[in-house]
Amino acid sequence: MSNSSHHVPAIVIGRLPLYLRALTQLSSEGRRVTSSQELSEKLGFSSAQIRKDLSYFGEFGKQGTGYEIEYLEKSLREILQVHHLWDMVLVGAGDLGHALANYDGFESRGFRIVAVFDANPSKIGKQMAEWQVQPMEELDKTLRERNVNVAIIAVPAGAAQAVADELVEGGVRALLNYAPTTLSVPPKVKVYHIDPVAGLQSMTYYL
Amino acid sequence: MSNSSHHVPAIVIGRLPLYLRALTQLSSEGRRVTSSQELSEKLGFSSAQIRKDLSYFGEFGKQGTGYEIEYLEKSLREILQVHHLWDMVLVGAGDLGHALANYDGFESRGFRIVAVFDANPSKIGKQMAEWQVQPMEELDKTLRERNVNVAIIAVPAGAAQAVADELVEGGVRALLNYAPTTLSVPPKVKVYHIDPVAGLQSMTYYL
Repeated sequence: MSNSSHHVPAIVIGRLPLYLRALTQLSSEGRRVTSSQELSEKLGFSSAQIRKDLSYFGEFGKQGTGYEIEYLEKSLREILQVHHLWDMVLVGAGDLGHALANYDGFESRGFRIVAVFDANPSKIGKQMAEWQVQPMEELDKTLRERNVNVAIIAVPAGAAQAVADELVEGGVRALLNYAPTTLSVPPKVKVYHIDPVAGLQSMTYYL
Repeated sequence: MSNSSHHVPAIVIGRLPLYLRALTQLSSEGRRVTSSQELSEKLGFSSAQIRKDLSYFGEFGKQGTGYEIEYLEKSLREILQVHHLWDMVLVGAGDLGHALANYDGFESRGFRIVAVFDANPSKIGKQMAEWQVQPMEELDKTLRERNVNVAIIAVPAGAAQAVADELVEGGVRALLNYAPTTLSVPPKVKVYHIDPVAGLQSMTYYL
C-alpha cells in the first residue's frame, strides 16, 4: 500500500469529506479530541477503515490518545483543498436552483456561488437570493474572467449535457450534477452525481 | 470473505445502486451484455472491485462473455428490494420540496411519493405537483394507515431532528435527509444524507 497521495483510491477521497463534516460537528460542540471508534459510530464505517484511510496522509492519531480534532480538521481541509474558497457558478434557476442559492452551508465549507444562469427568458434578470439570474450567453465570459473551476448543474435532464459541455469549454473541472442523467466529460473533469434514488436504494436493502 | 448476504459491507451495498443505474442506462441504449471493464469505465471503480462486489450475491458473469444486463439488472433490483414500489412521504414544501415533488425519476426506480407535509400554515392546502400539502398533524395518521417505511426530509436544519423523530415514531425506517445537519436515530433506522458540499469536496482534492 503506497503512502503517496498520488495513489489514494477515489473511494478513500470520497470518505474524507464525511470525516471532515463529523470533525467540524464535534468541534462545534466544543470537543478537542476524538477517536476512530467515535468517528466509526457517527459515520458507520469501521474504525479500522477510518484509521487506514487517514494513514494515507500521515500520522494523525496516537495509540491511546486519539485524534486532535482541530489539527485533523485543518489537515483534511488542506488535503481536500478547501482551506480557501472556490468560486462556483450555478446553472439552473428553477425550484432546485432556488433551494441551492439559499443553501447556507457552502461558504463555511469552502465554496461560494458567484453567479447564477438560466436559459429561460422568464427567469433572466430575476433576483434569486443575492444573485440576479443571468442569460446563458454570459456564462463563458464569467467563467473565464473569474477563472471558475467548479459548477452546479440544476437543469432538467434533457439540457444537462449541453450545459456540461459549455461549462467544460469555459474551464470548469468539477461538476456537481443534480440532473437525473449521466454526463459525458473529458477525463480531466470530475463529476459528482447527486442521485436521491441511489441513496434510497442503498437503504431499502436493509428494510 | 463470507458469501452470506448478511455480511455484505455497507460500502458494497452503497455501490449496488450505481451499478443498477449504469445497467439501466445501458439497457435503455439497447445493449444486452456488458463487462466489469465497461462498468469500471462508466463508474470509476476498478473492474476487480466490481467483480468482487457482485460476487457477494452470486455468479453473474462468465469469463469471456461478461454480464447479461437484463438478468443482472433484475437481480440487483431484487437484492435492493426495489422490484416493487416503496411508498414514501415528503416533509418540506419549500423550494427543495417543490423540486423533489416534480422529480420524475422516483417511480421507475422503486419509489413513489404518497403525501407531502409542511409545518408552515401558508403552505398547507397548496397544490404541489399532484399533491396537496398537508399539515404535520396529519403525518402520523398517514404513516400508520399506509404503512410508510421511507421518507424524505426537505426542511431547514433547525427543524430536521424533530421531523425525523416524528417519522421514526410513525414507523419510518429509511430517511433521505436533505437538511444540512446530522440526525440522531435509533440503530434500526437508516439515514442517507444528501450533502452537496461533501460531493464538491471529493472533487476539489483533484483540482
